Order: sequence, then C-alpha cells, then structure tokens
Amino acid sequence: MEPAAEQTEVLPADECWRLLRTASVARLALCVEGQPEIFPVNIQVDHGTVVFRTSEGTKARAAIDEAPIAVQADGLDDSGAKAWSVVVKGIARTISTTRELLDTIDLPVHPWESGRKDRFVRVTPDGVTGRRFTIAVAPQAASRRAARDE
Amino acid sequence: MEPAAEQTEVLPADECWRLLRTASVARLALCVEGQPEIFPVNIQVDHGTVVFRTSEGTKARAAIDEAPIAVQADGLDDSGAKAWSVVVKGIARTISTTRELLDTIDLPVHPWESGRKDRFVRVTPDGVTGRRFTIAVAPQAASRRAARDE
Repeated sequence: MEPAAEQTEVLPADECWRLLRTASVARLALCVEGQPEIFPVNIQVDHGTVVFRTSEGTKARAAIDEAPIAVQADGLDDSGAKAWSVVVKGIARTISTTRELLDTIDLPVHPWESGRKDRFVRVTPDGVTGRRFTIAVAPQAASRRAARDE
Repeated sequence: MEPAAEQTEVLPADECWRLLRTASVARLALCVEGQPEIFPVNIQVDHGTVVFRTSEGTKARAAIDEAPIAVQADGLDDSGAKAWSVVVKGIARTISTTRELLDTIDLPVHPWESGRKDRFVRVTPDGVTGRRFTIAVAPQAASRRAARDE
C-alpha cells in the first residue's frame, strides 16, 4: 500500500494565515552571497504581513533589508498525529518611518532572544504556502526492528 | 540596565551536536536561483554528519544535491526559560552508493511527512554554531500595557 498522496493536504491561504497566527517562533531564511542563512525569530502577523524584531548582530541579520526572505513556521495539530508547515515568501523591509513604527511598536512581537533588538522588520508577502500532513511513523524501520527482535 | 550580552551563551561544538541529537525535526534552508527556500525535515546525527530523507517533490528539494545548505534546529531547555538554536552549514549530497545506503538505511531517520521519501541526503558540515539564550518576555510591551491599564 502506498499511503502517500492523500496524506498531504495543501492548505488554502486563509488557513495558512490562521496557523501562522498561532505560531510565535518561526525561522527566517535568506541568501547572503549565495549561501543560505537561517535563524529563529518571533513573528507577529499584522494585516497580512509578517513582522519581527531583530538586531544588526550578524552579517545575515544586517543583510535582511530589501532581501527576498522565506519565513517558515510549523506545529502539531491538537491530536499530535498531524503536523503543518507554512512558508511565507516576500521582501523584508526595515520599518523606518515614525508613523509605521508607532503603528508597529505595540504589536506583541517581542524577540525570542532577549537583548537589544531595535529593528522592526516587515515582510510583505509575495505568496504563502502550507501543507498539513500525517507524521510518518517509520514503518520500515519499525518492521525491520520487529523482524530483528523475533 | 542593558541585559543583552550575558544572556546569550555561544555554545561549543560538542554541545551543539548534543542538542542536535535531541532534535528530530529541523529546518533546511537553501538558495534556489538566489531565492531562499526552507522546509522541515526529520534529521539524524550520524558520525558527525546530518542525514535526512526527502523526495524529489519540488524544485527546492531537487536542487539539494551538492548545494550549500543550512540545517537549523531549536528547542527549549527543561526549565522552559531558555531556548537554544543550532545551525549546521555544509554541502548536501544524495547518498547513492550501495554501501553507504546500507550503512544509512537503518538510521531512525524516517521523514516527518509520510509518503515516498526515497532519497537519503547527507550533510557534511563545514561548521556548526549554536547559542543558548533567555527567552524575552517583552518587558516594554508589558510595561506599556501596564501603564495604559493604570
């Protein structure tokens, strides 16, 4: 039996956004000189955009502004048998106008890591994709182990 | 008071690997035509390398072979007050020789998502970095809210 296809559900955009709103920690990926960089951030969904706070700490973090980035979050459904993963792709822009900062600063988008995270960054999405899938239980490994133990 | 620096601990490589061994789900980032791609994978640490299974499903997954990738995992310490994040960077290579496949196939590296994941990929690390940090509790937002409620 091949249980593959029907176990992966492609999620509509509104469900992706709903799930994203339940995630506080996400991971951000970007390319710096052709190399992938990835780090965790706290995110907040704000009017169809994703906002996070960061510092200028590393070359990767400094390179965020105007860069194409991918923000990914995942989690388990209540049953624990299914997982979801959502990816928002878009351009990251440091929030620099006073007005937008004032609009943003009350969002509960505290950084996951404490310390100075003075920069607010907003990702305006080009697209959002998501999937929900049954978590694999390694049937081959399990049956191999069972066979070995017999 | 500026609590920043002392709250982030840079982890030595052996601690990074120890933490990585406790993670079953990680996220993989790579660059495809200059754009970042990110998706979750189940990983297994194997003799100083990271092994995962994937399909050829998407352009990103197909582009993994010989690509520079970053594998990131994070988690909470037992206390729940501190988090850690570890990143392994290296070159991903599809495992294709019979001998290496036989060595690898018994690793408990079942894919997170069920379905056909016929390709085993090994990341030989160029480097591993990790940090442990106190989780921020959004003091500014909390104090602003408190001030507003007074």
